[in-house]
Amino acid sequence: MKKEKKTVKKSSKETHRKKQEYSLGDKVKVIADKEHSGIIFESYDPKVILLKLDSGYNIGIEKSKIKSIKILEKTKYKEEKKLKTIKENPNLKKILVLHTGGTIASKVDYQSGAVTARFSVQDLVEMVPEITSMANIQTELIANMMSEDMMFSDYKKIIDTIKKNDHKFDGIIIGHGTDTLAYTAAALAYACEDLNIPVILVGSQRSSDRGSSDANMNLLSAVTFIAKSDFVGVAICMHNSSNDNICAILPPTKTRKMHTSRRDAFKAVNDTPIALVNPKTSEITFMKNHNKKSGHQRATYKDKFSEEVGILKTHPNMKSSLFEFYAKNYKGIVVEATGLGHMPTNLGKNNLKNYEILKKFIKEGGIVVITSQCIYGRVNPYVYTNLRRLFDIGCIFCGDMLSETAFIKLSWLLGNCKTDEAKKLLVRNLRDDINERTLYKEEFVE
Amino acid sequence: MKKEKKTVKKSSKETHRKKQEYSLGDKVKVIADKEHSGIIFESYDPKVILLKLDSGYNIGIEKSKIKSIKILEKTKYKEEKKLKTIKENPNLKKILVLHTGGTIASKVDYQSGAVTARFSVQDLVEMVPEITSMANIQTELIANMMSEDMMFSDYKKIIDTIKKNDHKFDGIIIGHGTDTLAYTAAALAYACEDLNIPVILVGSQRSSDRGSSDANMNLLSAVTFIAKSDFVGVAICMHNSSNDNICAILPPTKTRKMHTSRRDAFKAVNDTPIALVNPKTSEITFMKNHNKKSGHQRATYKDKFSEEVGILKTHPNMKSSLFEFYAKNYKGIVVEATGLGHMPTNLGKNNLKNYEILKKFIKEGGIVVITSQCIYGRVNPYVYTNLRRLFDIGCIFCGDMLSETAFIKLSWLLGNCKTDEAKKLLVRNLRDDINERTLYKEEFVE
Repeated sequence: MKKEKKTVKKSSKETHRKKQEYSLGDKVKVIADKEHSGIIFESYDPKVILLKLDSGYNIGIEKSKIKSIKILEKTKYKEEKKLKTIKENPNLKKILVLHTGGTIASKVDYQSGAVTARFSVQDLVEMVPEITSMANIQTELIANMMSEDMMFSDYKKIIDTIKKNDHKFDGIIIGHGTDTLAYTAAALAYACEDLNIPVILVGSQRSSDRGSSDANMNLLSAVTFIAKSDFVGVAICMHNSSNDNICAILPPTKTRKMHTSRRDAFKAVNDTPIALVNPKTSEITFMKNHNKKSGHQRATYKDKFSEEVGILKTHPNMKSSLFEFYAKNYKGIVVEATGLGHMPTNLGKNNLKNYEILKKFIKEGGIVVITSQCIYGRVNPYVYTNLRRLFDIGCIFCGDMLSETAFIKLSWLLGNCKTDEAKKLLVRNLRDDINERTLYKEEFVE
Repeated sequence: MKKEKKTVKKSSKETHRKKQEYSLGDKVKVIADKEHSGIIFESYDPKVILLKLDSGYNIGIEKSKIKSIKILEKTKYKEEKKLKTIKENPNLKKILVLHTGGTIASKVDYQSGAVTARFSVQDLVEMVPEITSMANIQTELIANMMSEDMMFSDYKKIIDTIKKNDHKFDGIIIGHGTDTLAYTAAALAYACEDLNIPVILVGSQRSSDRGSSDANMNLLSAVTFIAKSDFVGVAICMHNSSNDNICAILPPTKTRKMHTSRRDAFKAVNDTPIALVNPKTSEITFMKNHNKKSGHQRATYKDKFSEEVGILKTHPNMKSSLFEFYAKNYKGIVVEATGLGHMPTNLGKNNLKNYEILKKFIKEGGIVVITSQCIYGRVNPYVYTNLRRLFDIGCIFCGDMLSETAFIKLSWLLGNCKTDEAKKLLVRNLRDDINERTLYKEEFVE
């Protein structure tokens, strides 16, 4: 019965009127089954309109169910913004904000109804005006991409920019998409040795035009951390909890994105944050020792990363042809194994073939690194016979190192040194990347 | 100076005497730099002996530093054990304990000094004598392997045994290595539909002869859960915390091994445990609704799993040849993407090639499933333009489903139904494997 009523209401004239009533970006009140107010934008599905509510949440409403749309406020999207020129304050530190793209610099794309990275660098600084009273801010555009597309050539661009500016600025902030932010943090930690300034990667889990965006607080916390502390080196600055009060300064080789959408998605794994920052009070609490600025220290930069490294995640019933592909096409393989470093290499014709492939690969100069898909804890070749068989043929068990860090470390080592040297350095603690103290120890730590 | 003294002490006669003094498996007191008591077993390194201390921890002592070894108790390892025959108690439920191997059924291998699975099934029951007063226990050997080597053919053997026994027993317990236990749990959940008995997978993170072993409590809790509850279906029983007091009954498609060594390594992801069990008091607390025994229900079994499914974990700077390999060699690919489901498919020649490879693969009948390497949260094609591009070519975004579950589900679907049907069922909640309510919803859940 309800359906019939609606059909009566929906004359073609009325549908046409409805369509013309609003522009994408307008703030509207929509009456359907319920009443909703929010900014309207085009949905992927032409039968649905999307509303971004004040809470930051989006809802989709079927057009056929809409009874009326009332415009509360027309979009101001196309208005030109005037940028203020700010005089340099000699009492404040100088910070360079680099822009690579990602959600921290995104706004809803009113064409597609989705979020893409397209803010200009100055928009980024505009977002958080209070940072200009804490530091002299300059900005530079490096790229404008969502971070899933990052290549090693992009790392090189970032490293070059850090190198060019490490003596001109007191700190560098890098706005970065969150998806591969931790990979980039590890890459910069390896490539930039003995940095004498802080280099802080900042991302955002929620589009900067959402009510629930974390972009502003993360950026403000990074500026606060650089302005008010003596830390030098690479770190990540993101929400410490889902509350908007504290940011964590996280270690570049021990941090992982552990949630698809939470603002506190970035967690130190097998480690603690370096420090906590309260951006409102500017209070900084260090949670462990950190490297401090030194008068004479000069950074060295090694920006080569080998393209010949891959990650192979193990699972039941793996094909030997996959192992063969990796052995044939890579110089280094990070095997994200199960548990303490196990992989299907012990029982049955197929699995024994996997073992023989790896054995031959290593004998011919390949490197096999073992990490764990458990994420927490550490691999250890000394607990089970099956692990010793792998250790025996030269697999390198990387203790409590993250798979993602092992991938970056191995790529960097093979880019900058010989195979034998790379093998040795993999299990050496170069950038707080591995706990050497517990490596291969025959004990369990709770 | 010290070194010289030792050289004097270590006559070849004395060394020989030392070697003959002990057998592997003996409890000894070793005096080196410090004094240690424990069970002696052969180390991988011939220059070191290993002691398993009463605490369950192992220490290695360099043979050259050993001053004396005193035998406290000779090994009893080779003594024959007599098994008691227990009469069936008609008031107790009947439970079948299947044995597949793993640490739950392991003891230190005195040849290699490491832990391998080689307990007999009856040893397993012997470990926890109290279970025989809670249920009538029978046992059956299916395999004796560490679980990293599990193949789909092993799943078939387990499923066959369940099928043969589902009307003869009130419940089945499966002893299983922890590394791929969660993969097997998911496989059994899909393969055994409408089970009318509980099938509980039990593992152990610590060898059953260690002081800190969790084998006994996990097994006892599984027996308690079957004996004292009306639950039917597949579940996992493991420590709920690192304390030895509560076990968690975990959902088979939503559980992941999240630590290499902790006893509470198994965690429900994007979900809660089904129940908590206190094995001392036999108290069971359900944390959500569960399926209960029904008078007429008969299970159906579909034990085919397609071998043509692989997992591809994305990372920066991926080779297109890897995408090509997967597209050429598999019918289904689970892409463990970053964040909300992103992969390197948008910018640059290499990445755009990845996109074209996947597009062609799907067009020609392949299935691409997207999950997130964040583990927590859910993928969602509606947030970013880059995600919509993937959705548009037919990639299937699997919401909050685990990558491991997606791999098992896709293998099972392709083993038992046609491609189109498989595509539809992937995002349907078949075994509490996906939250359909939040699927593709344009909102963020904290």
